[in-house]
Amino acid sequence: MKFVTFKADGQTRIGAFDGATVTELTSLPAGVNDLRGLLAAVAPADLAKVEAKGKTWDLADVELLPVIPNPNKIICVGVNYRSHREETGQDPNLKPTIFTRFADTQIAHGAVVTHPSATDSFDYEGELAVIIGRDAKNISAADAWSVVAGFAPYNDLTARDWQKHSTQWIPGKNFPETGAFGPAMVTLDEIADVPSVELTTRVNGDVRQNATLAEMIFDIPALIEYITGFTPLAPGDVIVSGTPGGVGKFMTPPTYLKAGDVVEIELSGVGLLVNTIG
Amino acid sequence: MKFVTFKADGQTRIGAFDGATVTELTSLPAGVNDLRGLLAAVAPADLAKVEAKGKTWDLADVELLPVIPNPNKIICVGVNYRSHREETGQDPNLKPTIFTRFADTQIAHGAVVTHPSATDSFDYEGELAVIIGRDAKNISAADAWSVVAGFAPYNDLTARDWQKHSTQWIPGKNFPETGAFGPAMVTLDEIADVPSVELTTRVNGDVRQNATLAEMIFDIPALIEYITGFTPLAPGDVIVSGTPGGVGKFMTPPTYLKAGDVVEIELSGVGLLVNTIG
Repeated sequence: MKFVTFKADGQTRIGAFDGATVTELTSLPAGVNDLRGLLAAVAPADLAKVEAKGKTWDLADVELLPVIPNPNKIICVGVNYRSHREETGQDPNLKPTIFTRFADTQIAHGAVVTHPSATDSFDYEGELAVIIGRDAKNISAADAWSVVAGFAPYNDLTARDWQKHSTQWIPGKNFPETGAFGPAMVTLDEIADVPSVELTTRVNGDVRQNATLAEMIFDIPALIEYITGFTPLAPGDVIVSGTPGGVGKFMTPPTYLKAGDVVEIELSGVGLLVNTIG
Repeated sequence: MKFVTFKADGQTRIGAFDGATVTELTSLPAGVNDLRGLLAAVAPADLAKVEAKGKTWDLADVELLPVIPNPNKIICVGVNYRSHREETGQDPNLKPTIFTRFADTQIAHGAVVTHPSATDSFDYEGELAVIIGRDAKNISAADAWSVVAGFAPYNDLTARDWQKHSTQWIPGKNFPETGAFGPAMVTLDEIADVPSVELTTRVNGDVRQNATLAEMIFDIPALIEYITGFTPLAPGDVIVSGTPGGVGKFMTPPTYLKAGDVVEIELSGVGLLVNTIG
């Protein structure tokens, strides 16, 4: 099942998405009006039981929002594919590289991403977002899948100059509306084999990044074990799990995003995230 | 005026603090029940007009909470005093070094800080917290003081091993209840001369850190200009502005915190933050 957060008829709603239409969820627990609330109320294994028997809209008639518009924690993973580590020239890392985004950095599938005026090196990073479905503290890798609600594509758009102003990357990763997240959360039961999920990033149709999740340095269970070892996660929190080689910064010459570019992040079986740079 | 967030008679309240007693605020705008809400409703220049004519408690009879228990953004500044930059061996930085904390890392003045079991290198960092009082985006240094509500002491307690697991410091800075913040927010009008405010950190009475705010590499207006250039700030957001030389990591030999240690962060005219390590 694929869940979206969307606005229609002036109201924020949760729906089921079939690629072309959105159907409002029904039989929601009392008080639940966003996807974060739904994940807090319904365990991951029970998500498929939520009914979508409400009104149906064509996708063109609704405004999609980021899959989770208001996560409490957005935890991002750096240099987590060998191909990207090699292009950055960084030493192999023994532990995951972790940074954060604020919730106001997020933007939906289909939205125009305003190129921040303060940077001249705005770059894509195609990634898999892992959405947490249960309270999670000190979770072992062996138990990690039990706290995952689902997956979605993510574009961790980055101001490269601000990323490298100091040793810490936060400024380059936190311009408003530069974290594209969508279109939908697909529940885990729909993913037959996680390592073989293929991640592809295209800019104006040209393939820039292509890898399978098997190429991650720290796989999803290892990331969950490490992260929940220092900070508790809750339903609706998001782990943005890293980008493979092929970012614009390391092209020859470096090739950054400009107004009018169309960036697509596709994860096989998960979804296709498309944004135009404005 | 000094504002505290506290629990008494089973309820979270906002009060005025005189060092020995807490008096509940009265004449609050409708719907305001925490300090973040008060800052959203009342401009910094008008905070002194808020009346404290409610019930008065002895400090010992209330439970202080972190000054702002629930900031949306906690922005921390690294290596922002020359003495600390020199002891770390880092190159001079042309821009501020920025990282973040989650709100659940905070703890109040007087509370016992549980030593995280996952680290054997738990260290203090005495700092000045700057509390934002207005919406702030692209604020110039010249206008920066207009968005500040007040100051408070902060102890940016750090798991040094987790800080250095990778290039990014987030894990070492985000164990639960390791950011001590209090006792109170002092409004700016009570600080006669910001650069001469003196920051002193003591462990079991021994002075470990001592500097004035004049020794900052990037002063508060410069920090606000830089930070609001990439992320908008809102009332109740916090900038934790960096620590001077003298942390335990760079003592000979390195000397980390252990159960029973008492850590005091004192800022002249701002307040004294005391926590015991448990």
